[in-house]
Amino acid sequence: MKFLRYGPAGAEKPGMLDASGGLRDLSAHVMDLAGISLLPQSLAALAALDPEDLPLVHGTPRIGPCVGAVGKFLAIGLNYADHAAEAGMDLPQEPIVFSKATSCIVGPNDDVEIPRGSTATDWEVELGFVIGKKAKYVTEAEALNHVAGYCVINDVSERDFQIRRSGQWIKGKSADTFGPIGPWLVTPDEVGDPQDLALYLDVNGVRRQDGTTRTMHFTVAQIIAHLSQFMTLHPGDVIATGTPPGVGMGMKPPLYLKAGDVMELGVAGLGVQRQQVRGSD
Amino acid sequence: MKFLRYGPAGAEKPGMLDASGGLRDLSAHVMDLAGISLLPQSLAALAALDPEDLPLVHGTPRIGPCVGAVGKFLAIGLNYADHAAEAGMDLPQEPIVFSKATSCIVGPNDDVEIPRGSTATDWEVELGFVIGKKAKYVTEAEALNHVAGYCVINDVSERDFQIRRSGQWIKGKSADTFGPIGPWLVTPDEVGDPQDLALYLDVNGVRRQDGTTRTMHFTVAQIIAHLSQFMTLHPGDVIATGTPPGVGMGMKPPLYLKAGDVMELGVAGLGVQRQQVRGSD
Repeated sequence: MKFLRYGPAGAEKPGMLDASGGLRDLSAHVMDLAGISLLPQSLAALAALDPEDLPLVHGTPRIGPCVGAVGKFLAIGLNYADHAAEAGMDLPQEPIVFSKATSCIVGPNDDVEIPRGSTATDWEVELGFVIGKKAKYVTEAEALNHVAGYCVINDVSERDFQIRRSGQWIKGKSADTFGPIGPWLVTPDEVGDPQDLALYLDVNGVRRQDGTTRTMHFTVAQIIAHLSQFMTLHPGDVIATGTPPGVGMGMKPPLYLKAGDVMELGVAGLGVQRQQVRGSD
Repeated sequence: MKFLRYGPAGAEKPGMLDASGGLRDLSAHVMDLAGISLLPQSLAALAALDPEDLPLVHGTPRIGPCVGAVGKFLAIGLNYADHAAEAGMDLPQEPIVFSKATSCIVGPNDDVEIPRGSTATDWEVELGFVIGKKAKYVTEAEALNHVAGYCVINDVSERDFQIRRSGQWIKGKSADTFGPIGPWLVTPDEVGDPQDLALYLDVNGVRRQDGTTRTMHFTVAQIIAHLSQFMTLHPGDVIATGTPPGVGMGMKPPLYLKAGDVMELGVAGLGVQRQQVRGSD
């Protein structure tokens, strides 16, 4: 099933896609796609509804992030061998974990804002997933049972803030609009093997990233098991799994985003994002 | 004014102290001390109530974290010159910013749990503050207008997870119970100068940390101004400002927490915390 949230920022309604791609309103059945509504039994109850019985949403409303009230927004660094090479860094022995401020989360097609003082705002298409069931000290074998669904994430990054502003990557990962999530939260049954998904990102129509989750260094299951040793994951937590090669920082010379640029990105089966880049407020 | 939250974890009610230290129930006036209830005008309306007109809470209920629904839990590293020295690190040119998972937040007197596999769980008394008004690109001069209040924070840290598990401190800062916050959210008018507060921490009755916020390297105002260049701060965001010398890691040999230990800590005017340490679930 493909779930989504639509409407004005901060006032999104829950919805799902019908067989022909039409948007159906789930408001009568769930308050929001957030927190305990993401528990397996809750999503199963929604998936059992006949979309044809739900109100069809007309027009083209804004699509919001596919999950609300995110508690933690975590991400994995250098998780593709080729990307580590282009970043000039070694593949880590264990997943590198950093966080993005939850206040950076936006819808998949909202504008991306270059923060003040930025000279190195960069793109990163990633496979994301959303936790559906509390995970504390889980094993790799049971880890995927804790996933509510998968989604596309653009882990927008300011390289100078990330690397040269007193360590800890969060500084370069958290500006407003740096976390487009969605369009859809796709349930695991529809995704199949999360380690066999093509993903890509174009800037102004030029293909910059073109990879597959087959070459991820740590798998989704390994990431969940690892994270759950250090902190408890809760329904609604969002994790971005790292980016394949082709970011702007890795180009010679580096190429960064500027106002007016357009990013288009997608992960197979999870939909497409499109962001216009603009200057700071 | 001293605000607090009391009752079972996850179901705390808002309260405030009366002139004689009695706990008064604010439930009739505000849903929770969280989000937009922390806006200056909201807190001013609560502060204008006569505590004697509010129901007195009898008994000794559990005290919860003094703010609910925390969006971001940020912290500043190496912000006291003496602590940087004991950690064997240079004072940073700019504030070192890291995050703690919001899922680690507990009440000021709740147990602290040593995570599985830990050999180096450590204490850190800190001055904390809570954002009361959105802050984006604010100057140092206007920064303190964005503070709802101050509180005690124990920035519990697993040093091995923090430093030797593939970088990014979040891994050692985020285990469940690693973020006791409270007991009180004290409004700025009662605190006076946040850069002139004594703070201390005892382990099993032995004084281990004894400092003053006068020796902070970056002030509260500088921290807010700095953070707001990299991400937008929202009401309910919590920031820990760094710890003075005396952590277990800095002792020769290092001394870390074990089950059965008791931490007692406080910041002048902001109340006292007391945590019993226990083994992992």
